[in-house]
Amino acid sequence: MPTLIDFRQAYAGRRVLITGGLGFIGSNLARTLVGLGARVSIIDSLQPDYGGNRHNLAGVAKDVKVHIADVRDWPRLPRLVRGQDFLFNLAGQTSHMDSMSDPQTDLDINCRAQLAILEACRLHNPQVRIVFASTRQIYGRPDYLPVDEKHPLRPVDVNGINKLAGESFHLLYARVHGLPATALRLTNTIGPRMRIKDARQTFVGVWIRRLLEGQPIEVWGGRQLRDFTYVDDAVEAFLLAAVHPKAVGEVFNLGGPPPVTLKQLAVQLVAANGGGEFLVREFPAARKKIDIGNYYADDRLIRRRLGWRPRTSLATALERTVEFYRVHRRHYV
Amino acid sequence: MPTLIDFRQAYAGRRVLITGGLGFIGSNLARTLVGLGARVSIIDSLQPDYGGNRHNLAGVAKDVKVHIADVRDWPRLPRLVRGQDFLFNLAGQTSHMDSMSDPQTDLDINCRAQLAILEACRLHNPQVRIVFASTRQIYGRPDYLPVDEKHPLRPVDVNGINKLAGESFHLLYARVHGLPATALRLTNTIGPRMRIKDARQTFVGVWIRRLLEGQPIEVWGGRQLRDFTYVDDAVEAFLLAAVHPKAVGEVFNLGGPPPVTLKQLAVQLVAANGGGEFLVREFPAARKKIDIGNYYADDRLIRRRLGWRPRTSLATALERTVEFYRVHRRHYV
Repeated sequence: MPTLIDFRQAYAGRRVLITGGLGFIGSNLARTLVGLGARVSIIDSLQPDYGGNRHNLAGVAKDVKVHIADVRDWPRLPRLVRGQDFLFNLAGQTSHMDSMSDPQTDLDINCRAQLAILEACRLHNPQVRIVFASTRQIYGRPDYLPVDEKHPLRPVDVNGINKLAGESFHLLYARVHGLPATALRLTNTIGPRMRIKDARQTFVGVWIRRLLEGQPIEVWGGRQLRDFTYVDDAVEAFLLAAVHPKAVGEVFNLGGPPPVTLKQLAVQLVAANGGGEFLVREFPAARKKIDIGNYYADDRLIRRRLGWRPRTSLATALERTVEFYRVHRRHYV
Repeated sequence: MPTLIDFRQAYAGRRVLITGGLGFIGSNLARTLVGLGARVSIIDSLQPDYGGNRHNLAGVAKDVKVHIADVRDWPRLPRLVRGQDFLFNLAGQTSHMDSMSDPQTDLDINCRAQLAILEACRLHNPQVRIVFASTRQIYGRPDYLPVDEKHPLRPVDVNGINKLAGESFHLLYARVHGLPATALRLTNTIGPRMRIKDARQTFVGVWIRRLLEGQPIEVWGGRQLRDFTYVDDAVEAFLLAAVHPKAVGEVFNLGGPPPVTLKQLAVQLVAANGGGEFLVREFPAARKKIDIGNYYADDRLIRRRLGWRPRTSLATALERTVEFYRVHRRHYV
């Protein structure tokens, strides 16, 4: 990473709390932070339908303090946020379809609990440096491509509405209450430790699972353009945003290598796997109603302001991810 | 109202539910609907800090079924929405300052309960024609004036964030689930039956109270431009939106007579009262952080699509309002 910030110096010995820390990005962040010498604590609900998985900390578990707790459990929050230097706030409900069938749960996690976390910080640790995992979902169907941070926010599903409120609370608390918070709007993130059991976190997970099990991938539609951030690059963005003075109170898109169609992605994934098949199918009706069409991010703002850039090509990202699940699949299915 | 829709024909004998129906706009709507021959039910929490006031139904109380209930009390909602032809959804927490000091209560009422109301409709009465009371607060500080419906949505306080989510849920349920819902983005609404005890609903209320009590008005800042809708005009907009086929799934700004500065408003209000004083004061710091500066609405969309227009001049609105509180003040302080 071509940055002036030395992550080891920034994080060694520092206290870091990660909500959703047994999940996909949270656990990769925790592992990196352990390597940097940080004192890492995690909150994770380990709800079966979500991204948390104890195996995600394999090899570093003894270096991480894990609180099995739900961010909706407000009374526990003050004690957990007190004394932390950094809060990486990644706990969330990620499934768009689940948000439509059970909207209140999505609201309670992505909106109501976020406000409770921020209130706990405001009252008990207003200095804690916060980075919030937001999502490209809050843009809805793009008016133009690539989508920059000025694009209108018009979420198309309950998840997007709640994530937008959650992000807005973070930026409001930065502006009005002086909490040093940053929001990163993530696009599709892929890599080791993502959920592959089903499509609740990312459809790429279930694609990889099917390939590894000798099943054909189901590609819905196929022509939609998407960009993909490799998880190591996303982790670097979080680490950078939390220590860069120009990140406070700001919101940044994360992007990735040049976008591809879902069909191109399927072709590349089959190649990364060294074989396999895919079928192109019609979009299911319920899914179509909340689909956003083409999306890829304009991430020039974070490149310019913080010096971040995605460093991993899509081919490498897919190869590393397939390789990981070839070895660890049994812990994820 | 120069419209082809005959309100008496549209509402006579029809079942209408009004949430927040003992409040300012809700009660004026209820009174009008009783006059049109509708079968009116009301939900109101009658919380002391909110807008509900039993006196608001004086003279029509026997014609309205009042449920003292909180929209946060979900188990009661299905029974209440079942069988209704119209739902005017006006229950809300309106104070910007309260939303900052007690953000979770604002969220529970303006965001979480709204989703519960919509879920109750989706499951138990998906045909019910819904009109939601949204607010200009969701625009935040205007980029340009007058503000039309395409203006970016960037709320500056917790109340605005939650009201935006509440509105978004209504439009999402219209688009995805086919619920016939409309949202009206209200600007400052004034008139008989508004809260005058304090500034929780509108600062104009407390101004009138002070004048009637022989106290000087406190004008904060004074140069901000605002527009004001008289409540009878707002009521007509709700009645029209609920029956106009072109309103389904849409969102419309309500405006009023030409905007005035707060200082001009104070001058006009003193004139309407036949005397009184005002003092111009500095904005309190906590309030300044969430102030939106100048605002007035571009309401051409609802004029063009539905044929609505504000019909009451500001002078008339202020005179009628002062006159009402001259007679009824003791029920409101």
